[in-house]
Formats: sequence, C-alpha cells, structure tokens
Amino acid sequence: MDTVAAYHFGWIDAQGRPTDADSGKAVRPALALLSAEAAGAAPEVGVPGAVAVELVHNFSLLHDDLMDGDEQRRHRDTVWKVHGPAQAILVGDALFALASEIILDGDDAHAARAARRLAAASRQLIDGQAQDIAFEHRERVTVAECLAMEGNKTGALLAFAASIGAVLGGADDALADALDAYGRHLGLAFQAVDDLLGIWGDPRSTGKLTWSDLRQRKKSLPVVAAMAAEGPAAARLTALLTADVKKSREEFEDFDEAEFAARAELIDEAGGRRWTADEARRQYDIAIDALESVTLPAATRRRLTELADFVVVRSK
Amino acid sequence: MDTVAAYHFGWIDAQGRPTDADSGKAVRPALALLSAEAAGAAPEVGVPGAVAVELVHNFSLLHDDLMDGDEQRRHRDTVWKVHGPAQAILVGDALFALASEIILDGDDAHAARAARRLAAASRQLIDGQAQDIAFEHRERVTVAECLAMEGNKTGALLAFAASIGAVLGGADDALADALDAYGRHLGLAFQAVDDLLGIWGDPRSTGKLTWSDLRQRKKSLPVVAAMAAEGPAAARLTALLTADVKKSREEFEDFDEAEFAARAELIDEAGGRRWTADEARRQYDIAIDALESVTLPAATRRRLTELADFVVVRSK
Repeated sequence: MDTVAAYHFGWIDAQGRPTDADSGKAVRPALALLSAEAAGAAPEVGVPGAVAVELVHNFSLLHDDLMDGDEQRRHRDTVWKVHGPAQAILVGDALFALASEIILDGDDAHAARAARRLAAASRQLIDGQAQDIAFEHRERVTVAECLAMEGNKTGALLAFAASIGAVLGGADDALADALDAYGRHLGLAFQAVDDLLGIWGDPRSTGKLTWSDLRQRKKSLPVVAAMAAEGPAAARLTALLTADVKKSREEFEDFDEAEFAARAELIDEAGGRRWTADEARRQYDIAIDALESVTLPAATRRRLTELADFVVVRSK
Repeated sequence: MDTVAAYHFGWIDAQGRPTDADSGKAVRPALALLSAEAAGAAPEVGVPGAVAVELVHNFSLLHDDLMDGDEQRRHRDTVWKVHGPAQAILVGDALFALASEIILDGDDAHAARAARRLAAASRQLIDGQAQDIAFEHRERVTVAECLAMEGNKTGALLAFAASIGAVLGGADDALADALDAYGRHLGLAFQAVDDLLGIWGDPRSTGKLTWSDLRQRKKSLPVVAAMAAEGPAAARLTALLTADVKKSREEFEDFDEAEFAARAELIDEAGGRRWTADEARRQYDIAIDALESVTLPAATRRRLTELADFVVVRSK
C-alpha cells in the first residue's frame, strides 16, 4: 500500500520513480498548525491534527475519484486509473484508519476530545459525498440543499482543521467553537470557489478536464443557483439539465464540447456564476467575523485572514 | 445510505420490502457482551463495543466483496451487485466512521482506551486484506505469511471483540490482554474453518459459490499448506497454481468446474485439508489456554468455551 499512497501524494510516479508532483494546497494542515497558535500553543502541538486531517482528506479524494469516475487529479492520472479500483478503496481505508490512530496518540482527555471531533467531521464528510452523488440523479436541488451538502462535504473537515490544534493545545470550548465556525464558513467559501473552478477553471491550473463538474452532472452551487433564477436562460438551462438526468452515462459522455459550453453559458447568463462568487464572499465575511468574538494573538489572526484570502482568490 | 445498509444487513430486499434474511452469525457482538461479563460488568456495558465491532466487520465485508468481485454473500446478491460500486464504498465508509463515533461515546479515559484498540484492530484488518489481495498475484506464499495475514484479517477484530467489553467495564490490562489473546487465536481457528468452507463448504450452507476461494485464486491455508508439502500431489498442485497466477481474470473465469474440483482434490491429497483442520484445533486450544491465566466468572468461562466450540464446528 505504501507505493500506492506515495503515488497519490505525488512523491513517486506510476513507475515508482521519485518525482516532485503537486501534492495539493495543504490548506487543511496549515489551518491545524495556526489553530494551535490560536490557543497560545506552539504550532507543533497541532501536528497530529494536521496529519489526521490530511489523511482523512486524502482518504476522501481516493474514494471520491473512484466513485465519481474522475480520471485526473493535480495533472496526473488518479490512483484507480493507475493502480486499479481495489487499491484505491484499500489505501483510502488505510489512510482513514491511520488518522484515528494518530489523533488518539496523546493523553486520554485530549485524545478522546480530538477523536470525537474527527469522527463527527468524517461522518459529515461521508454524508456530504452521499448527498453530492444523490443530487446528480435528481432533477431539482434547492440552493439550501446544495449549501447543506457542501457544509458536510467541505465545511466539516475545514472546521475540524481550524479547531483541532486549539483542542490539542487545551483551548476552552468557546475558542474551539469560534475556530470551528471560522473553518466551516471558510470551507463553504472554499467550495463555492471550487464550484466556479469546476466549470470555468483553466484545465492548465486545475489539473482537471474542462467543464469538469458539468461532465459529471454535479448539482453544484452555480448550477442550482441558476436553475432557481427567473427568466429565459434559467428556463432553457432547467429544460436541458432535466433531460440530461435521464440520459445514460455513455450517452452523456459522448457529448460534444459545445454542449457543455452551452450549459456553462446559460448558467452564467442566468446569474449562477455571479451568485456563487458573491456567496464565496459572504461566507468569507462570516468566517472572518467568527474570529472577532475571541481573543487571538495578533499574528495568528492576521495569518488566518491571509489564509482565507488565499482560499477565495485561488485559481486551482 | 440507510436503504443500502438495511439491504446489506438483511433487513430489506433489493426492492426495499421488509425481509428476514440471514444477517450473519453475530460472533463478534456476542464476544463483546461476554467480554463485559468477564470483567464482572453487566453485558450491556459491552454494547458500544458490540455495535462498533459489527460496524467495522460489515464495513470490511462491503469493501472486500467489491474488491474481490464477490457476487454472493449469505445467499443474496452483494451490495455492489444490487446498488452499484459507489454505494458499496460509501456505505462501507459510513459504517466505519460510525464505529468510531459510537466507541468514543463514553467518559474520556475509557473512550480513548477503547478507541485506540478499535483503531489498531481496524488498521490490522485493512493490512490483512491488502496482504490477501497481494497473495493472489504471487506464485508462492509461505504458511507463516498466510497465518500472519489471517491474524491481521480475522484475528485482530476478534481480539478486539473479545477484549472491548472488559475494557469498557474498566478491566485491568492483564484481563484485557488475556481476552485479546483468546480472541486472536479464536480468530485464527475461525479463519482456518472459513478456509476449509471456502473450498469444501456446501453452497447451500455457505451462501457462496462452490470452490469459492479457488475461483479467486486465494492463497488460503489449505492451499499454502498443500503447496509446502512434499510428494507428487503437492508438485502437481504447485505447477497448476503457478500457471494460474499468470492467467488473466477472464481466462480464469472461463474455467470448467472440473478444473476447480481437480485442484481441490490435489490440495486434499497433498494434506492441505487435514493440516488446516488440525491448525483450527491448535488455535482453539491456544485460545482456551489464554483464559486459564485469569480469574473469570464460571458461567462466562463456560460461554466463551461454548462460543469457541461453535466457531470450530460450524458449517457456514
């Protein structure tokens, strides 16, 4: 399993040769270290949390890429494409199990508290993926349902990351909960940006195919916001996507690029793109506000704000 | 996900109608309740352990059936056959996450101790499945390697089941470790019997295909013990199985029933069947011996022995 995990993390290529591929943005572990500092602890106090969150995140990537049939991640073939579905399942399971072991490796009181937060975040993450998959087969999804799904799928793990260092550093519940709220709303901002990139992102930056989310019939925020709008573009989009749901996967994969481009254009015209960009900003503001209620070292507050800035302006 | 889980547990059929299908032998939860009694606690003290172990066991069944391509379990189509691979992955993940949440739902000291045992057992379980899959593609596997694999794949979770009730009941390490050893060796006896049933089990009892393990080229105990033996049957078997490893899955699936029957016959002739039956007995004896070192209520000791008797004489 080491080889498969090392491939996934970008440390070796498909032939097992050392490589220096893109290993991801490391937003979650960065948050876990800042979180320890927020509680007045040394950043290294957050390391078990940083490792655990990165393991759970990568467990979910391994399984989600297989479930979604995604062939590319970070400009490279996904694990199931290179090493087969069984290895993607197995190594995902192993990373998930390892996360629990690592977070429990401390004194009993801290370990139990940290592990409960990890278990709850993991369950929400899995619920979110289940909702995401279910939505692909539904004709209509409301904006509220989509936000609830994204809160589970992305918000919960960022909330864990943002609070776990403080928990390991012995913070009280008020501080841990404020950091949790910051992380949850930052996660929603992050996902809104991801949803924009999933349709209009430059494949050279994202490492994914063009119109990636549209190819999978994802009911992401720009899509549901556009479908919820009034006017001819929204009506035309709704008619197209409602018909899409009834198509077989094979029929859908034979689509011409122009078909996806037309859908993307309608989403934009109906206001889904603009609404999602505004939503990213709204969630960013709530995240920053959540930090106002607690006392933090000035440097940590600045870094948490900078990290939030990075999340909303990124191109990959 | 509820529907998929309920189908897997045998509570509803593929159409969602209530049913009363075989839900499994429930050896693991029975052990967890007896384990609480062993520590002088009420059996219900072991309930979170019983639930957690059953969840982890069923997580592994959902994923393993998919990885192994098994189409039948307990006389019914497996989850991935009925609901698709994505649901088998997702619901497995959800059961695994839920197990952690349940075991952590107590006071901090007990919760952390119990969760550490669960995390370690889960990691070993996954390691065992990885070894099992790897062995299918290897020409030779030693008996020691096979026992190590089965100790991970089956022994670790039975060790957890047999000790978790006592841990939740506040037992000291000496008692928990003796129960752990009992469970681990009972697991090895259990797996030896499973390996016999995997080749010679009656499909009407096991709910699996005839020669089930041979169809998957499993390097189970009867196979590796036979290959390690001297004489013409062992040599003939080794030549056949070495050639089998090089075949594609499709070539292999086209095999005639007689081909599997011939392999089973050679395994028997080379002594693999007898050796495995003896090994089940040896492991049973070590399991019972492990209980001798500790003080237990007489009724609990008797029940733990009866459960071990059931494990080695079962036909499914």
